[in-house]
Amino acid sequence: MDSAFVIKTGGVCAAKGFRASAVSCGIKDPSSSKLDLALIWSNTPAITAAVFTQNRVKAAPVQLSANYLRADDPQAIIVNSGNANACTGPVGMEHARQMADVTAKALGIRRRQVLVASTGIIGVPLPIERILPRIKELPQLQGKKDCRQAAEAIMTSDTVAKSAVVEVEIGGKKVRLGAIAKGAGMINPNMATMLCFITTDACISKTELQRATREATDLSFNRITIDGDMSTNDTVVVMANCRAENRKITARGPGSRQFRDALTALMLKMAKKMVADGERVTKLVEVRVNGAASQRDAELVARAVANSSLVKCSWNGNDPNWGRIIHAVGYSGAKIKPELVDIYLDGLCATKHGIANQNGTSFKELEKVVTKRKFTVGIELNQGRAEYHIYTSDLSPEYVDFNRREYAVPQS
Amino acid sequence: MDSAFVIKTGGVCAAKGFRASAVSCGIKDPSSSKLDLALIWSNTPAITAAVFTQNRVKAAPVQLSANYLRADDPQAIIVNSGNANACTGPVGMEHARQMADVTAKALGIRRRQVLVASTGIIGVPLPIERILPRIKELPQLQGKKDCRQAAEAIMTSDTVAKSAVVEVEIGGKKVRLGAIAKGAGMINPNMATMLCFITTDACISKTELQRATREATDLSFNRITIDGDMSTNDTVVVMANCRAENRKITARGPGSRQFRDALTALMLKMAKKMVADGERVTKLVEVRVNGAASQRDAELVARAVANSSLVKCSWNGNDPNWGRIIHAVGYSGAKIKPELVDIYLDGLCATKHGIANQNGTSFKELEKVVTKRKFTVGIELNQGRAEYHIYTSDLSPEYVDFNRREYAVPQS
Repeated sequence: MDSAFVIKTGGVCAAKGFRASAVSCGIKDPSSSKLDLALIWSNTPAITAAVFTQNRVKAAPVQLSANYLRADDPQAIIVNSGNANACTGPVGMEHARQMADVTAKALGIRRRQVLVASTGIIGVPLPIERILPRIKELPQLQGKKDCRQAAEAIMTSDTVAKSAVVEVEIGGKKVRLGAIAKGAGMINPNMATMLCFITTDACISKTELQRATREATDLSFNRITIDGDMSTNDTVVVMANCRAENRKITARGPGSRQFRDALTALMLKMAKKMVADGERVTKLVEVRVNGAASQRDAELVARAVANSSLVKCSWNGNDPNWGRIIHAVGYSGAKIKPELVDIYLDGLCATKHGIANQNGTSFKELEKVVTKRKFTVGIELNQGRAEYHIYTSDLSPEYVDFNRREYAVPQS
Repeated sequence: MDSAFVIKTGGVCAAKGFRASAVSCGIKDPSSSKLDLALIWSNTPAITAAVFTQNRVKAAPVQLSANYLRADDPQAIIVNSGNANACTGPVGMEHARQMADVTAKALGIRRRQVLVASTGIIGVPLPIERILPRIKELPQLQGKKDCRQAAEAIMTSDTVAKSAVVEVEIGGKKVRLGAIAKGAGMINPNMATMLCFITTDACISKTELQRATREATDLSFNRITIDGDMSTNDTVVVMANCRAENRKITARGPGSRQFRDALTALMLKMAKKMVADGERVTKLVEVRVNGAASQRDAELVARAVANSSLVKCSWNGNDPNWGRIIHAVGYSGAKIKPELVDIYLDGLCATKHGIANQNGTSFKELEKVVTKRKFTVGIELNQGRAEYHIYTSDLSPEYVDFNRREYAVPQS
C-alpha cells in the first residue's frame, strides 16, 4: 500500500455526497432482526462503472443492473442478503425490477438510476412482500451507525463486516474512495460470491472510470481464490459523483495514475479481507510465480498451486510440503522444466533445481514459515521473465464440514 | 459390463504364463513387515503398451520405463510402494536402473526387458540397500498367495487391494486379461497417483495393443477424479504374451473390437474401484452430460461439476444442492444457455429450464437419491448432441483431515 494513502474509516459514506443505511426484512431469518437490506445512494447522479460475474448463469439483479447501467447514470444501489434471486426465472426478474422501482420512488429518481444486487440462497423466489415495504424507510436513516450497518447487511457467511477508505490528492484536491464488501464462500479466480460497492467523490470521465475499474479488478478480486467456484451474483460497482471538485480525470490525463493506484489499493485491501475471512480459513497465502516463459504460463502455474486441494490441505496442517507444490506446477499445463524449478517459502529455499534443497534449509525452518497465518510461496521457473501472483487460503476440515449442509437450499 | 465377460479371480496371474509375488523390504516402515515390493513377470517376452503420467514432473522410474519400452519387449515389472523415487535427481535415476538390472539378473533376461514403477513419498532417495537384496527372492515365490500379495504390496493409502479378471472368447480361443491396481489419493482427470498393471495371454500386434490401451485409458482412468491433482508416477502397463494362441489381433481385424471392449471393461472396473476407495470417500457419483453443442463443451461441464469443492461437499452432506451444480455448469467455460439446462438426480428432475422443477420432484425425493452410496447426476444442456461422462466422489472433512499432515514428507 502506497504510504500516500491515508486509510480512514467511514466506508461508503466517506466520499462527499454519499449515504448508506440498512434494515432487517427477515429474509435471512423471519424470526430474527438480522440486517439484510441495504441502500447506498448519492445526492447527485454518479458516473458509474461495474464488473459483473463471468458465470453464464447470471442472477436476475445482475442482468437488470447491466441493462440499467447502459441506459442511465445511477444514483443508488439496493442490496439484499439471504436470497440471491438466482435461477428464479421470470418471477425473479420481476422482483428485481420491483426493488428498483420502489427504491427510485423513495429517492425521487428514475428507476434506471437504481442498481440492484442480491446474495444468498439460490433457486428460491425472494420474499418480495417483506422487502418492498421496508425500502422507503432506508433514505430516512442517515447516521454514522446506519452507514456502518450497510456493511453488516450485505454479509452472508462472512464473520466480519468489511469496509475501507482511501484518500488521495489529485490536482491539489482531496479525493476519497470508500468501499464495503462481502465475500466468504466460493471466492475464486475471476471473482466469487462477492459484492463490492465503491463510492468516490472524484470527478472522472466514464471511459477512464471503466478502465480503472477493470484494471483494479484484474489486480485484486481476480487474483484471489478460496475454493475455485464462481458465483452467479458477483458484482463490483464504482460510483463517482464529482463532489471533490477536482479537475476531471481523463484517460492518461493528470491524476489518472494516482486514481487508478488508489482504486487498486482499495480493492486489493478488500480482496485480502475476503480471503482472510473465507469460510473456515486459517491462512492467507500469496503464490508468486517468477521466471515464466509467458504471462499465461505464470498464471497457469499460480492458479494450479493456489487451487490444489492437496497443497491447501498441507498448509492447514502446517506441513511445508514442497512435493505437492511441484506436483501442481507439473500438471498446470504450463511449459516448465522440472530440473529448473526452485521453490521458496517466505524466501527460504525448499526446492532447488526440482529436488530437495540439499545444502539446505531445514525442515524445521520451513515448517516455521507455513505455521504462520500469512506467508508467501515463491516459485522460480527459470525459463523467462514473466510473472504472476495470486492470493489463496488453506483448506480445512471445518470448511468441508461447514459446506456439507449449510442450508436446505443452495446459496450464492 | 458386457455379460459375455466372465469375471474371475486370479489378478495378474489369471492369464497364461504370468506370475507375480511380493516381499517386505521395510520401505513403508522399517520396523514392520508390510509388503512393499512386487514383481510381475511373463515366461516369455510380451508385446507391451503403456500410458504414463502427463505431469511434466516425471518420477525416475517413469522416465526409465518409457525409455526401456522403446528399446525392447518387456518380460517383467518391478514395483515398490512407500517411496515414489520422484524429485530425487540423478541418484533417483541410478536407483531405478539398479532395480531393473537386479531384476533382469534374477530372471535371466535383458535389463531393458524390465519396467520399473514406484509410489509413495516424494523427494527422498529410495532405501536402495534394503530393496536390491530382496529382489532375487521374488521369482521363487510362485503360489496363489504370492500372486494375491502382489496386489497388496503396491497399496499406499488404499484400504483394499484391487484386482480383477476378464475372460473373452476371440476366434474360438479363450483369452484372459487380469489386473492389479492402486489408487487412493490424488485421483484426477488425466490419471492420478495410480498404478495399473494388466497381463493378458492374447496374441495381438503392438500397434493394436497400443491403440486399445490408449482408448481404454481414455474411457476409464481419464474419466475419474477425486481431488483434481495429478501424480508424477501414474502408470498403466498392458503386457500381452500370446499364450492363448488366438489368431493375432490386428488393427480393425477379427477380434479387435472384442479385445478392446474387454480391456475397457477391465480398466473401468479398476477405475471405479479406485474412486470408491479414494481417501475418505463415501460416495461414487457419475456425472453425465448430454445435449452439448460439442464434445469439448460436454467435457468442460462434466469436469467443472465433478471437481467443484462445493458440489462435492454437498454430496457428503446428503444435500441435493442443484444450485451448486448449475453454478459449476455456468462457470465451466462451455457455451451453455442457463434457461435450457435441466438437471436430474438418478433420473428425477431437480431443475427444469434452469430453475427449480416446479411441477416437481420434492426435496425429500431428491435427498433420498444423494443419500445413496452411488448415484448419477444427469445434466441436459439441450444445445446439441455431444455427451461426456465422468466418475467422481464426495469431499469429506475426513479427506482434508487425512491430508493435512499424513507424512513429514510428500507422497505420490
